[in-house]
Amino acid sequence: MNQIRRIGDSQRWSDVVIHQNVAEWVEVATDMTADAAGQVQQVLRQIDETLLQLKSTKAQLLKVVVFLSDLQHINELNAQWDQWVLKGQAPIRACVGTTLGKACLVEMIITAAVPPVDIQ
Amino acid sequence: MNQIRRIGDSQRWSDVVIHQNVAEWVEVATDMTADAAGQVQQVLRQIDETLLQLKSTKAQLLKVVVFLSDLQHINELNAQWDQWVLKGQAPIRACVGTTLGKACLVEMIITAAVPPVDIQ
Amino acid sequence: MNQIRRIGDSQRWSDVVIHQNVAEWVEVATDMTADAAGQVQQVLRQIDETLLQLKSTKAQLLKVVVFLSDLQHINELNAQWDQWVLKGQAPIRACVGTTLGKACLVEMIITAAVPPVDIQ
Repeated sequence: MNQIRRIGDSQRWSDVVIHQNVAEWVEVATDMTADAAGQVQQVLRQIDETLLQLKSTKAQLLKVVVFLSDLQHINELNAQWDQWVLKGQAPIRACVGTTLGKACLVEMIITAAVPPVDIQ
Repeated sequence: MNQIRRIGDSQRWSDVVIHQNVAEWVEVATDMTADAAGQVQQVLRQIDETLLQLKSTKAQLLKVVVFLSDLQHINELNAQWDQWVLKGQAPIRACVGTTLGKACLVEMIITAAVPPVDIQ
Repeated sequence: MNQIRRIGDSQRWSDVVIHQNVAEWVEVATDMTADAAGQVQQVLRQIDETLLQLKSTKAQLLKVVVFLSDLQHINELNAQWDQWVLKGQAPIRACVGTTLGKACLVEMIITAAVPPVDIQ
């Protein structure tokens, strides 16, 4: 069976799972006292950080599924997304409104291609 | 890193992303003035068109995640879905009710196997 | 094109689809008269059964997307999840509140690595 690499030390979930050159992870804002714009900004920055950690880049993003606690916040999402995403190398994106935990205003599931790595 | 093929010229997202022989894309009805049955019909036809463009077929569908703005419309979905899907070669399917944009009544995320292609 | 293996005899969907060493399936409780804790218990047991059928294990889980009809039931989910999931080999997990069918309180989309198989 092909090897699975996991990142994170939570007992409930892995922060990132990598399998067959594809990484997937779930991102929510670290500081949920922020408003929607602030949470979107955090999540996009956190994606950048995770991509860096994975030796991947925004050009390798395959899919982003966005859950908003209030779909009206799609304006705040798009304003920042459009600056953040690479033109011509954008992922596919779905965005829907759902109930999210507590003060969470935005949650994303990210899929990205990553370079092959040696796993120990 | 394995090559990624993208289709579409939107600056916000790719219409289709293909990686390692798997294509994924998000489909909503082109004409959202249609009712639920009409939007479902459009989306299923658009999937057929995208499969054709990808040199894939309904027999290669792996997964369809359906978001309905009103889960009561699952009857309209199933009536057409059951005619459309290939018996014995159906994808897995999840269907949940979420908030969708504006006049959008149905949104689907589609995953399909595609033949290997030469990428330039 | 790489081979696709499908499990299940429903005409509407496959119970499981396996492609390129990855299996995906949707799980809801078989007995939906149960309360949230009961439905979560059933779904987790059903995942165990499907993994067994696929000659896979909990250590091969890659991703679980959880839809709850009432996000307040996340407590019932976590209580059982934390006992069930393998520490250090957990999948990534997203959990959001959506409308679900009829008496359905929890629905999960599961992704797992599976060993290569000979397909006839």
